[in-house]
This record gives sequence, structure tokens and C-alpha cells, in this order.
Amino acid sequence: MKKNFDYLTELRKVMKDKGIDACIITGTDPHQSEIPAHHWRGREWLTGFESGNGTNGTAVILQDEAYCWTDSRYFIQAEEQLKDTGFKMMKEDGPEAVNLIDWVTEHLNAGQTVGIDGMTFSISLAQRLEQELNDNGIKLDDNFPQFDYIYKERPSRPMNKLFVHDEEIAGESVDSKVSRVLAEVKSELANAVMLSALDDIAWVTNVRTANDISFSPVFVSYLYLSDSQRVLFVDPEKMTAEVAAHLKKYNIEIRPYMSVLDFVAELPKETRLLMDPAKTSRGMYDKLGCTPVFGGSGIAKLKSLKNATQLKNWETAMEKDGVALTRFFMMVEKEYPTGKLTEVELGKRLRAFRLADPSCVDESFAPILGWNAHGAIVHYEATEETDVTIEGNGLLLVDSGGQYTYGTTDITRTVALGEPTAEEKHDFTLVMKGHIALAKAVFPEGTTGHQLDVLARQFLWAEGKAYYHGTGHGVGFFINCHEGPQSIRLNANPTPLEPGMVCSDEPGIYYEGRFGIRCENLIITEPALQTEFGRFFHFKNLTLFPFDLKLFETAIMTDDEISWLNNYHEEVRNRLTPLLTPEEQEWLKEKTRPLSR
Amino acid sequence: MKKNFDYLTELRKVMKDKGIDACIITGTDPHQSEIPAHHWRGREWLTGFESGNGTNGTAVILQDEAYCWTDSRYFIQAEEQLKDTGFKMMKEDGPEAVNLIDWVTEHLNAGQTVGIDGMTFSISLAQRLEQELNDNGIKLDDNFPQFDYIYKERPSRPMNKLFVHDEEIAGESVDSKVSRVLAEVKSELANAVMLSALDDIAWVTNVRTANDISFSPVFVSYLYLSDSQRVLFVDPEKMTAEVAAHLKKYNIEIRPYMSVLDFVAELPKETRLLMDPAKTSRGMYDKLGCTPVFGGSGIAKLKSLKNATQLKNWETAMEKDGVALTRFFMMVEKEYPTGKLTEVELGKRLRAFRLADPSCVDESFAPILGWNAHGAIVHYEATEETDVTIEGNGLLLVDSGGQYTYGTTDITRTVALGEPTAEEKHDFTLVMKGHIALAKAVFPEGTTGHQLDVLARQFLWAEGKAYYHGTGHGVGFFINCHEGPQSIRLNANPTPLEPGMVCSDEPGIYYEGRFGIRCENLIITEPALQTEFGRFFHFKNLTLFPFDLKLFETAIMTDDEISWLNNYHEEVRNRLTPLLTPEEQEWLKEKTRPLSR
Repeated sequence: MKKNFDYLTELRKVMKDKGIDACIITGTDPHQSEIPAHHWRGREWLTGFESGNGTNGTAVILQDEAYCWTDSRYFIQAEEQLKDTGFKMMKEDGPEAVNLIDWVTEHLNAGQTVGIDGMTFSISLAQRLEQELNDNGIKLDDNFPQFDYIYKERPSRPMNKLFVHDEEIAGESVDSKVSRVLAEVKSELANAVMLSALDDIAWVTNVRTANDISFSPVFVSYLYLSDSQRVLFVDPEKMTAEVAAHLKKYNIEIRPYMSVLDFVAELPKETRLLMDPAKTSRGMYDKLGCTPVFGGSGIAKLKSLKNATQLKNWETAMEKDGVALTRFFMMVEKEYPTGKLTEVELGKRLRAFRLADPSCVDESFAPILGWNAHGAIVHYEATEETDVTIEGNGLLLVDSGGQYTYGTTDITRTVALGEPTAEEKHDFTLVMKGHIALAKAVFPEGTTGHQLDVLARQFLWAEGKAYYHGTGHGVGFFINCHEGPQSIRLNANPTPLEPGMVCSDEPGIYYEGRFGIRCENLIITEPALQTEFGRFFHFKNLTLFPFDLKLFETAIMTDDEISWLNNYHEEVRNRLTPLLTPEEQEWLKEKTRPLSR
Repeated sequence: MKKNFDYLTELRKVMKDKGIDACIITGTDPHQSEIPAHHWRGREWLTGFESGNGTNGTAVILQDEAYCWTDSRYFIQAEEQLKDTGFKMMKEDGPEAVNLIDWVTEHLNAGQTVGIDGMTFSISLAQRLEQELNDNGIKLDDNFPQFDYIYKERPSRPMNKLFVHDEEIAGESVDSKVSRVLAEVKSELANAVMLSALDDIAWVTNVRTANDISFSPVFVSYLYLSDSQRVLFVDPEKMTAEVAAHLKKYNIEIRPYMSVLDFVAELPKETRLLMDPAKTSRGMYDKLGCTPVFGGSGIAKLKSLKNATQLKNWETAMEKDGVALTRFFMMVEKEYPTGKLTEVELGKRLRAFRLADPSCVDESFAPILGWNAHGAIVHYEATEETDVTIEGNGLLLVDSGGQYTYGTTDITRTVALGEPTAEEKHDFTLVMKGHIALAKAVFPEGTTGHQLDVLARQFLWAEGKAYYHGTGHGVGFFINCHEGPQSIRLNANPTPLEPGMVCSDEPGIYYEGRFGIRCENLIITEPALQTEFGRFFHFKNLTLFPFDLKLFETAIMTDDEISWLNNYHEEVRNRLTPLLTPEEQEWLKEKTRPLSR
């Protein structure tokens, strides 16, 4: 047995002491972060199963059995890592899926108690769980912070220093943002708001850090706002003189992170406190002295509508990213014949090219570098165990991005090393036809992403080919790479695409065990036309890097598609050339030469 | 004042007697029909406002005021018709919209009573109304059948004779349908079902009539089904020996229509009776002796999936319809130069051409015949008051269909009389490009109509043009022309398109005061491909009549679009030619000649 089994034994003792018959442990933090800091990755520590970002995987522990739920992306890995830990794997999706809450209610008897740490459950999730348990006569104890009892070497909360995100780049003062947020708050008939989502807080305060959370410059905190009071709850170790002065300028008090619970306990009944039930913890809800108001999606919307200054600066970020990618792909072409490049090595090199620019704080997500068969694994992350050498002919899929203070980037290019096959060219071209159809779309005000999604899929579908991930996600500005509320997916999403929203455009095709193709740019929604039929919008491209000319089958392209590509490549060349060395300029010129039949 | 004012005075007296402070009257029947029989059109009789199908318009009567709500399609007409009736118009949509339920709650005091006829409110609508009233301390009396008191010359219920819809055409026996319905019933954890929707009943029983309801061969009835009992509640005057024998063969008892309320009152508690709350009346719900189970959308789904026999017969209906349209449009071309044709006259002629076929029982909806500016009114119905002569150059929009025992048709053609303008040709071609893109779509299993809708709109949108109606509705088989659950619209609809479902494909463009264009065929979802990515479906065309070759701007068409059109026209020619006279054959040959650049 691995040492995890000892932790499990320890936990079972505590459960017995506290009268807990079953314990449920999520992989998230009190802020519902997509990637939690290590302090909140106790579920990984306990079970030994490490999903990419830490949030995937939910553990259920009873006295005589213990399970960890995960989804199909992780079945093989979880099975392996859970061996000899005392945990068995349960499937969250696919034909053998087991519903966790149903399972728990079926395996407990009326009168028994389920324990959770309310700080790591959202209000909505805890409410759903409690309802189902209570319907079956089972009690919920939401004050069972299991890791306080058993996780002795638990990492502390991240204590990285904060810095100010220049208003010249953010394009809006904290005062302006606060007053717009408070207008939203009042429109929900509340008079104060508690923000828990770290990207909301970073956006309102124009403050960032590095490394609290991997791949995002947000910082661990809570933010309270009302007409008369603004309080940032943050560990004092993170403070700098610059940030203290900035917060003071905007009348934001600083209080210790952990004091937030006492603060909400003491708020008077007259405070109608807006909280997003999907982003606020049940633990905080339990402490409230004031009147809760559930809502708050309006704030995500404010953040999603980028201002002109952000969009202008984003162009700078894209130029820097284009330069880094030019250097990276030149290196790949040059060193690939040596047969010494591997996926892991490429990942290190790519990171170094990006971080060479002082404005790049981190990558914006774990890069996906997949050679041939690995390119077909949608969320592939190369590790020492999976690493392969880039050799022979094939396709290299590179999906990566940077957190520049000027904006966040996220780009996927699929390139052919050696001679591509006719099949690879054909499928690459189908993917690009979809990419271009979405990029060129014109649509009336009020149109949502799910209404446009098929434009990117239609050419693949016509041949019985399909990808099942979304075509586009919202993208934050020097903040989380994935953000809402808009998206471009098959699933219905009621948020219309509005001017200033940035999305990815990333269709793909994946052949298990053979190769994968994905082509991704970021696109901004902009006004296009005003006619007797109303206002129409279209997209403007943000991303700057050529698509691999070797991979186009021009015979299945329309003239319009070819000119779209040539215009795009001309823009890439014009914008990047001034930033490159003569040798790089030559390389780029060749890569952006006009495509003709 | 018109005589309506006397009716109103009468109603107010009864309201006073019965302690009713406000009375709300809908335009529907106990079956939630889209077009109710005249027996249930008391709201029209009372207010004098006659909407096209009778359902539009809800009246609210207080002792000192009376209003009739309607939507923007009817504002001008309602304003006119309500003059001197004692009713004022209220707007249901647009910037001056007033919410009816909000208005009622604001204009009554706690303790007052609202009266409705529960038989003409669905369970869901009555429930919503009651909730809001009760929240404001207002009572609901749902047993106020106002027309029983005041409508002396009320038409009786329709007493048309029933006939059997041949199983050779319907493709499925009543026993088979009943057992499939009961399987759905059990899947909802019920053990019996009461069907109120007339199209559901006509489908299950393979029985039809003519003229109970305009434009649909359904008949006024209820149907109760359980494992041990099948009862059709229908007026005995409608029965024929043929239908009686048919029902007996399938063990369906016949009971008087009105006895259904006593029947449900006497059902024992153990009967768990499935009822669709959107299609069943509050009046019936009030009488229930048994346990209600709300649900039943599964039955609409069964009806929507047409079997191979239906689809085969539908081809016959389409051939007959194509012949009628050939004769109609030949006549239009021939007589148009005389300057004597009017929209109303064309409507009569078109009806006659269709009903010349003995299998055509009725038109499938009120035909829309719009010349130039009238073509821009989406739901235009030519009347003596609006009628215009077809003269000069212009576009004639003809949206019409027939109820053939072999299947229901619904087709729109827009034709140029005289020389079309470049603008008309351009816009017609944009509409056709959208029509063709949808007709040619290939899509994976699970795809819904709203995911495909943009294919039909994209070319118009690219030029800042748009239509705001749905692109496609489900179509019944010798039953209601509009049916669910599937649709092809911008609005999200969770029902996937499945093999056997029939939809319309009808994009358009409308210039107020100038002209309108719409191009509509019916299309069947069929399996197309099975690949490693799953099952893929596509559409097969049902409708057979040429699109006007004079209206194509070939310069903006792709080769694929031109071949789609030529192949379609070739099929139309091959299928219709054997059914036509030599002169008609010549005409059709010319109308289906290959289009080239």
C-alpha cells in the first residue's frame, strides 16, 4: 500500500470521532478556481490522483470503502495512480458512469451523516447535495474541514507579492469599475456585493500577482464593495508599497484574508449582499449575518466587454507572441532534422521564447505539444513518461499561450514536418474552411455563439467527420485564459456576442492513435453594419502567426477563402516584420507568401 | 355603439350576480387548438376582433373597463374592429407592451375575484395566473363559463362525420400506436393517459374528419388509454358505421364527448393519469378523481417520427400538389396580362386546383398570396378590403398547402411577373443560397434544429439583411400542418432532428411596403453516413415544384448550388411529367430547364 492508505486511515479515525459516516472532497478552492493553489489540492494529496489542473476528481470516503470520481480524459491515468491507495476509480461519464450524489444516497441509511468542507463547495453544489440527502433522510454536516485534521504538511496559502496592472493598459480606473459593479448590484436589488471569483477581483482592483494560481495572474482574496465601504481581504504578506498606495487611492481597505468570515458574520440584516451562488462557498454563506441575494452574472459580463485601450494593448501582446512563435517554429524547423527534439523539450523551449519578453509573466495554460498520435489527445500534456521524439514525417500540434501584461494569448497551430499526406492536407483544409467561415461571419445584434457554431463544423460534417469540443471560449485580458459568459459551442448559451467580447475560433479533427489538427486564433466581436434590418456585427482577428502553407488543399477552397488567408498572412507579415531580425524576416516572408491554386 | 356593447353589458350583469370582479377570456378551446372551432370563438363574438385563426386575442372585462390584448401583427386591425364595442386594445409585444397578468393584479384589490372558464385555460396557464393572483391576495374562480350565460346564438360543437384514415396510408395499426403510447406513459411512471390535443387523438386512432377545425382534418374529442380500457369521448352525431367498426376492432369504447368530466371524476386514486399540462384544460384537472402525472411530450415525439409507409405516401401527395401548382401557375402566367387577376381571385383558383383531387380534403392553412408590398407581410391574408390586382412588374409570393389523405403539403414559391429587378434577383438568390445550404446539410446524430438554422441565414446576414421568423417548423401527416417537437429556429429547442422527422425549409426576406421573398420546401431527416465519428444524417426533399429560373443571379452562386438546383428541377420534371397533359409537360420542361452561368 502507498502512504495514501495511511492518510485514509487517519481520516477514517477523525470521521468516527466526529460522527461522519461519509466524507465528500472536491478538488476546488473557496473561490471555485479552475486551477486551485496547492494549499487547496488536498484531494490530490489524499488520493494520489493528480489531474492536470487539480480540480478534476471528487473523493468519497466511507469507513469500509473509498472512491475517486473522474471523467473519461483521466480513466487510464486515475486507474494507475489510485492503485494501492485504498481508493477505487468511479466514472463520471461514458456508458459506465455513476452519479456521485445518487451513489452516496443509495449507500447511506436515513439518519447517517455526510461531512464536507463547506469552504470548498459552492453554494449551488452544496444546496443540490443537501436537497438530495435530506430527501433520503440523510444529514449534511458542512463544517468538516477534513484537511485541518489530517494534512500535516499542507502547503500554506500562496504568498506572492502583488503588483498594479497599469491603468494605461487596463483602460479603466478602479473607481469606474467599482461604480459599474455597484450599478449591477443595485439592478439585482442588493446594496453590497462579496466577490469570491479571483478573476472578478483582479479585474475590479487592477491588481495582479504571479504564481498564486498556475497560468493566471490572479491572486487569492475576497472583495467586498458597497457605496460606503470597499474591503480587500488578502494575506498581508502579499502587500507591497505600490499596491498599498494604489488601493488607498481608491479607498480600498485591506484586511487579513481569513477575517472575511467574521466580517460577513457581522454585516447587519439591512445589508442585502449579492453573491454568485456558483462562485461563492457554502462556508461563507453559513456565516452570513446579513441578507443574501443570489445573482451576479452581470459582473462577468462587464469583464467580458473589453474597452478600446485593452483591445489596442492586446495587439501589442499578439505582436510579442507572434515574435516568440516565429522564433520557436524557426528553431523547430532547424533542429528537427537532428532527431533530438522531444515534446517535453519543445515545451521548455516554447516557454523560454515567450518568457524572454519581460511583459510575459507566465504561460496562459499548460501547453499542448502533440506529435502525430499525441495531437489526437485533445487535452494532451507531455510528461517524461509520455514524451516522444519528433522524427519522421508528421503533424505537430501546438496549442499554447502567454500571460502578457498587455493581454492574454491562446493560439493553436498545426504544422507538417517532412511531407504531409494527402489525407492530412485534406482534413487540415476542412478545419481551416470552418475556421475561416466563423472568422468571416456577419450576424445581427442578439446572435449567440451557439447560433454560429455550425459554421465552423459544416465542412467536416459534410464528410462524416466531427470534433466534439467547443469551437470557442471567452478569453480574459491578462487574467484567466478561459472566461464567460459568452462561448461558441453546440450547447445553448443565452449570452449574445457583443462588441468588445473576445473568443477563440478553434475547430479541429482528431484521429485516435494517428494525428490531430486544430487551428486557433482569437477574434473580437465588432460592429460591422447598420441597415434597415438592424445592427450587424462581425469578428476581427487578434492573433498573428501564419498557418502552415504546406497543408492547404487549394482544390477544395473557394476564391474567398484563399483571399481571406492571403490577407491574413499579409497582415501577419506587416505587423511582425518590424520586430524581427533580417533572418527571421526572410523566414516569415516565405511562410506568408500568397497561396494560389 | 356596436351590438358587442350589449353583450358586454349582459356579461357585466352576470359578473355582478356571480361575484366576479374581473373576467379573463382566451381565444382557445378545451384542446388548446391552434385554430378552434366556431363553438369556442366566443371571444371574437364578444369583442368583434377577429384574428386570423381565432386564438389570438385575450379579453379582460371589469365593471368599468374592458380590454382586448393582441400582438403587433394585429394592432391596426384590432384598433379598427374594437371601435365602438366598449373594448380598448392592449399591446402584447413591442415597446408599449403591457403584461396582462401584471395588469390584472395591479388593477384589482386583495379580496376581489377573477373569473375564468377553466375549460379554455391550459393547466399551466391557469396555474401561472392563479399563482400571481394569490400572491396579491386575489381569488381565482375557474368555474365561470361566461358564454353559457350570455352567448345565446352560440354555434354548436362541430358535428362532421368521421372517417377512417386507411392503415395502408398511415402505416401503423391503432394497436401498435396504443401500445407505443402506453410504453411512454409507463416511462413517466403513470398507468393511464388522457389525450386532449386533437392531433394526438387523430394520430392514435387513425380517424379523421373534415371541417371540425379549419385547415386540419382532426376531430373534437378526448381519448383515454390504459392497459385495460380505451375510451374515445366524441359526439355520437359524428359517428359512422365504418368508424364504429374500426374503433370496435381496436377495442375503443365510444362515449359522449361531454361525459369525459364525469369519467375522470370517477377514476380511482390508483389511476396515475398522465396529462400534458400545456394541452389539458384546467377544467378537466379540477374534476379529477385520480392522481395526475404531468408530462407526455413523448407522444408528440412518436407522432413526429414518420414511418416508411407515410413517407412513401407523402411522395404521392407531393406529386398531386405539384400538379395542382403547375396548373395554377400556368393559369397565372396566361391570365396575368389581362389585368383581371386579384389576390382574392388567385386564392379561390388555387384552392380549386388543389381540391380538384379527391384525396385533398382541405387546404392545410389559410394561403398567403401577396403581390409586391403584400408579400412583405409575413402572415398576410388577402381579403376584400386589402385585395389588389396583379398588374405591372413584380413578385408574387404564394405560401399554401393541402390536406391530402396521402400527406400534408406546405410550399412557398416567389415568382416574377414581368421583368424582375436586379435587386429582386439578388435577394431571391441570397434566400435560395440559404435554402440550399440547409437542404444540403449533413450533421451528426444529436444535432438540433437551432444548431443548423444559421446555414439558411448566413448569406443574407453577410449583407446586413435578415428575416426574423423561424426557418423550419415540424409538419404533420394528414393532420396539423404545424407540429412539434422539433423545429429549425434561432431559439434553442432541445429536440434533436431524427430520421423520419419532416420540417419546412423556408428562409425569406421582407422589405416593408415593397416586396417579400420566401422559398419553402419540406425536407425529411434521413441517415446519411456512418463513420468512426458516429452516425450522420441529412435531408431529403419532399416538395415538387420548380423555383422561378428568372430570379437567379448566377454570378453569386457556386457550382455546387447550381447543380443542386438542376438536380432538383430534374427530379421535379421526372416525377410530375407523367401526371401532366402535353401542354403542361411543355410548360414544366421550360420551367425546369438547366440553369447555367
